[in-house]
Amino acid sequence: MNSYEETYDLVTSHVREAAILESIQELLEWDERTKMPAAGGNYRADQAAYVAGLEHRKQTDPRLGEWLTELAESPLAADQSGDTGTVIRHLRREYDKQTRKPQKLVEELTRAAVEGQQIWAAARKANNFAAFQPILEKMVDLKKQEAAALGFETTPYDPLLDDYEPGESTENIAHVLSNLRDALVPLVQAIAESGQRPDVSILERTYPADAQESFGKQAAAAICFDFTAGRLDSTDHPFCCMLGPNDVRLTTRYDEHWFSDCFFSILHEAGHGIYDQGLPAEHYGLPTGEYVSLGIHESQSRLWENQVGRSRAFWEHFFPSAQQAFPQALGDVTREAFYGAINDVRPSLIRVEADEVTYNLHILIRFELEKALLEDQLSVADLPGAWDEKYMHYLGVASPTADDGVLQDVHWSAGLFGYFPTYALGNLYSAQFFGQAQEDLGDLDAQFRRGEFSNLREWLREKIHRHGKRYSAAELAERITGKPLSHQALIQQLSVKYGELYGL
Amino acid sequence: MNSYEETYDLVTSHVREAAILESIQELLEWDERTKMPAAGGNYRADQAAYVAGLEHRKQTDPRLGEWLTELAESPLAADQSGDTGTVIRHLRREYDKQTRKPQKLVEELTRAAVEGQQIWAAARKANNFAAFQPILEKMVDLKKQEAAALGFETTPYDPLLDDYEPGESTENIAHVLSNLRDALVPLVQAIAESGQRPDVSILERTYPADAQESFGKQAAAAICFDFTAGRLDSTDHPFCCMLGPNDVRLTTRYDEHWFSDCFFSILHEAGHGIYDQGLPAEHYGLPTGEYVSLGIHESQSRLWENQVGRSRAFWEHFFPSAQQAFPQALGDVTREAFYGAINDVRPSLIRVEADEVTYNLHILIRFELEKALLEDQLSVADLPGAWDEKYMHYLGVASPTADDGVLQDVHWSAGLFGYFPTYALGNLYSAQFFGQAQEDLGDLDAQFRRGEFSNLREWLREKIHRHGKRYSAAELAERITGKPLSHQALIQQLSVKYGELYGL
Repeated sequence: MNSYEETYDLVTSHVREAAILESIQELLEWDERTKMPAAGGNYRADQAAYVAGLEHRKQTDPRLGEWLTELAESPLAADQSGDTGTVIRHLRREYDKQTRKPQKLVEELTRAAVEGQQIWAAARKANNFAAFQPILEKMVDLKKQEAAALGFETTPYDPLLDDYEPGESTENIAHVLSNLRDALVPLVQAIAESGQRPDVSILERTYPADAQESFGKQAAAAICFDFTAGRLDSTDHPFCCMLGPNDVRLTTRYDEHWFSDCFFSILHEAGHGIYDQGLPAEHYGLPTGEYVSLGIHESQSRLWENQVGRSRAFWEHFFPSAQQAFPQALGDVTREAFYGAINDVRPSLIRVEADEVTYNLHILIRFELEKALLEDQLSVADLPGAWDEKYMHYLGVASPTADDGVLQDVHWSAGLFGYFPTYALGNLYSAQFFGQAQEDLGDLDAQFRRGEFSNLREWLREKIHRHGKRYSAAELAERITGKPLSHQALIQQLSVKYGELYGL
Repeated sequence: MNSYEETYDLVTSHVREAAILESIQELLEWDERTKMPAAGGNYRADQAAYVAGLEHRKQTDPRLGEWLTELAESPLAADQSGDTGTVIRHLRREYDKQTRKPQKLVEELTRAAVEGQQIWAAARKANNFAAFQPILEKMVDLKKQEAAALGFETTPYDPLLDDYEPGESTENIAHVLSNLRDALVPLVQAIAESGQRPDVSILERTYPADAQESFGKQAAAAICFDFTAGRLDSTDHPFCCMLGPNDVRLTTRYDEHWFSDCFFSILHEAGHGIYDQGLPAEHYGLPTGEYVSLGIHESQSRLWENQVGRSRAFWEHFFPSAQQAFPQALGDVTREAFYGAINDVRPSLIRVEADEVTYNLHILIRFELEKALLEDQLSVADLPGAWDEKYMHYLGVASPTADDGVLQDVHWSAGLFGYFPTYALGNLYSAQFFGQAQEDLGDLDAQFRRGEFSNLREWLREKIHRHGKRYSAAELAERITGKPLSHQALIQQLSVKYGELYGL
């Protein structure tokens, strides 16, 4: 073993230990959100803070920087998308980002995020934006300082976006998302003006929680989520987390008078979980075993939730089972009526309740506003007005109150600027990948009708999951579809599906 | 703040960090035994080993030794049972024990325990003691080395016992336990010869798991286990663990054709949990917030399981609820028949299935044998013969095979020598404390009949829980009951109860 290889081993041992700490952090959070008795919260915060400190020390250990500097010039770094090249390139990048932020700023950001979320929750409850404004101003200022510390060429939005979508540029996504907006607004209008409305009340009948759980698990297993290496629990706000290789936890919630919430949460989180389960376990803790970006992660959840789970072919297979699971609610419902109801499109105020068409406009509004805040094109004081204006302009709806408007999301209070667009990127990538899968795998609808989902799962594993962070999101799109990220595949799929449903 | 107080703060911060690591270890184990998907096991072992390493480094940090040496001479250490005196005394003691063991021996013991448990499991399955003998010989040898490293005056059993029962002596418990044996053997014989047998088949009827869960939770809540600071889950081998202040997890298992297993596990673990919940939360991580010893912990579980949960008065309150919860199984059963069945006493081979009378003889056998092994009075090769002889002598039963005999317990394979007697000490202390509570609190049976358990819980909290490790087990017994540890209270209670039940 030569000296480079020894140094490489030091690096991988070091970051695998950091990954153990991160996996423990995930367990602390999973348990807090699914099992922990309420009174345990204070100590749980102490535990999480202590582990975060250990993890931060690992990530910013100067020895790691020295090892990575040494390796950057070595033959091990030469092949950028080889195993060692991928590991060295990404770790170097991450180490630089971590160490460029002054410790004092990191601590101020952490404190402001904790305080911000508390103030936000109270302000939202009181429907009072003014109470939230000062801490949001502070947070915007701190995020600008963070962007300055990280460095940028054109916009402070770039280095913040990079936390979630490594290597992506604000300019590029602004371009793609504005194309998306320009195509979506008229589609949403056309649907609204079609005068057609499915009967969604059938989804508001009684759906017993235990039947929802077993039906949801049946569907998640059918699309190849592996329950020997994962599980499903209930929580307040559904999420998926990876506690380690071969241990992926899905969560959902049960509303006995709204079918869609639980079921599509399960499919969505199972999509995330299938990606996590497809990452190479032996690379766990290294960039070669990590997901590409939040946008790519979201593309996997959206693909199973929307392209698959809201398709007619999916329900041609599953509707009889649904009728068996919920005989009282669905016994007298036709498959087509059900298919229409789960694909109801209507402009609304609340992002998390939005359908797959209008959802992207909610994201666009947030992206445009947070970008303007960071680029000093908009003041926090003017944010509510700008919010309402965009909702009227893009979706044709007016927020009567701030709690259902500008105060509805936790993200800004927690300092998550640059996060929102990844939701829309997920929708774009999912459409683009699914379109390619249809070309590569023949008649997918026919497979779904037979309850066969493993070809698609294998295709995703082969094309995306197994590579870890070897390729960036943009590179993956080019490699898999031969095209850069674009609005076209999504718009094309939505136009066909909803054109037929709404007679456009 | 003077220099001693500053040093004291360094010490408490340091050990509170070690306690966070220990609490994380508990969470890793709780999750592994209740929730984790099977495939997650390999990585879970990596996580646990890494955290154990961090914890060990904390506990043996030379700075801690220096601080404690400095404090040992300070005024803060003067009052042995004051807050600071208790903390300094116990930490010093623990630090000395930890650092007296050579690192190489610690690692050998860890490896032998992992290997030992694997070999034991296979040997038990194959009913083959010879396959287990070599690793057990190695383990006995390592434990003797450990005892030598820790130092002892009369027997190598002393320093090992001290891990579980700090400050207790082998000589004393050998004396107390032999008195117990001499009184128990004739009582067990008299019961066996009485010719009376309750009809236990009523406990083997169908008890649906969900009804067992809700009935068990109802009982645990009634005896004042606080479910806002704890929860109940299912597992293979029931246990209780404390994940932090205000977060105590009980577990049980459900056998739909054996009422006692689940229900008395819940009461037993809730007894442990009530102790954990009664420890002062603000002292969590310090000796002033820790349980006294395993024997005292077991006294709390046994008191609620046996003295309370197997009493006639308890069922005078709960039997109507039990009939409601299990109408098919208990609708035609009288309370007295039920009371007789849950108090069936019969000599048997398996410790974990033993009743409250014969249980102690199982423990005595193990204590006498493991003491003899460590004191070179018995060779591992002769262990199976000695085991069978004692079972015949004390309980009048013969083990037909090793898996139901000398191979039935995991403890020795894991290196837990000195652990077994704490089970019997728990029974002795529980009887002694309960006898005193009856004197202090008036007619406890009348309170139980009315479903009132809070006086007893408060008494335990006041007398035992709130003190943490301020007093040793022996000191507690003297303070609370005015008497040293003895077999008398237990024998007296068992004689009255079973004399009446079996017409002795």
